[in-house]
Amino acid sequence: MTNLAEAISSMQSTFREDAGAALASFETQSSLSDGMRSDISIRDHELVIDEPEQLGGGDAGPNPVEVVLAALGSCQEITYKVYAAAMGIKLRRVSVSLSGDIDLRGLFGVDDSVRAGFQSIRGEVDIDADTSPEKLTRLKAAVDAHCPVLDMLQNGVPVELELKASA
Amino acid sequence: MTNLAEAISSMQSTFREDAGAALASFETQSSLSDGMRSDISIRDHELVIDEPEQLGGGDAGPNPVEVVLAALGSCQEITYKVYAAAMGIKLRRVSVSLSGDIDLRGLFGVDDSVRAGFQSIRGEVDIDADTSPEKLTRLKAAVDAHCPVLDMLQNGVPVELELKASA
Repeated sequence: MTNLAEAISSMQSTFREDAGAALASFETQSSLSDGMRSDISIRDHELVIDEPEQLGGGDAGPNPVEVVLAALGSCQEITYKVYAAAMGIKLRRVSVSLSGDIDLRGLFGVDDSVRAGFQSIRGEVDIDADTSPEKLTRLKAAVDAHCPVLDMLQNGVPVELELKASA
Repeated sequence: MTNLAEAISSMQSTFREDAGAALASFETQSSLSDGMRSDISIRDHELVIDEPEQLGGGDAGPNPVEVVLAALGSCQEITYKVYAAAMGIKLRRVSVSLSGDIDLRGLFGVDDSVRAGFQSIRGEVDIDADTSPEKLTRLKAAVDAHCPVLDMLQNGVPVELELKASA
């Protein structure tokens, strides 16, 4: 067993004994600065999100919907790493290409029958792993059932936003 | 009318006349490197996503679910900017705080009745704008109806992922 497999197994035992230990919260704070640029703080990390020039931004970073794809790609990769380790599969490489199609009439309120977000997301996961095709199929099923960002995108999440006006 | 309001109005006219002009695709390519670190390319931009040490990563960047919150916060801010301009509201400041609650028994497959993603997302949008409370209520409604990332999180998106194994 690799160290990662041991770490996962130990985390699973802890969560089985104490479900409360599995509860976590994540937070971000962001603020719009020049134009469409948003500066975001996440623990010790900083992220800049902006719109490309065609959409009125200064292109100081990827835009929000691109960042959704980035979150999904990385989440798939990490979940492949976790489940490959748990299933004893040696994973040499995992990379993900994603593309999302959007109809900007949604965002700009031109036609309210058009949704604002991606109409669909398609992608390819490329892996180099030391295992059989059957085990790869089981690995993909395990990953897709347990990938947090894929779950949120496929099944939605309750979101509650409060607006506060201040001077 | 500000330049932004003019730009939005001109974009809306274009999309009304030619719906095909509103279709856009966004893409990301990512690859897992050391540990849980994912290096992501988005046009000319680079993003690093990683897990914190408690989750087995090297903490080289925010993690995937934090990046989902970052995308939502920035998308809300940009959509406030767009709709404030379109409604003739002078927006001096907009910032967003978000928090998402997750039960890690989902990701780690400890209990399959527990979802992998956030159970819920809560947040506060703080704005400083030169307008009436009634217009602010209308602004929030317009933003929440047209924010692409909020739409995807609240309503879900069809996602299709193909697994390719290569040596």
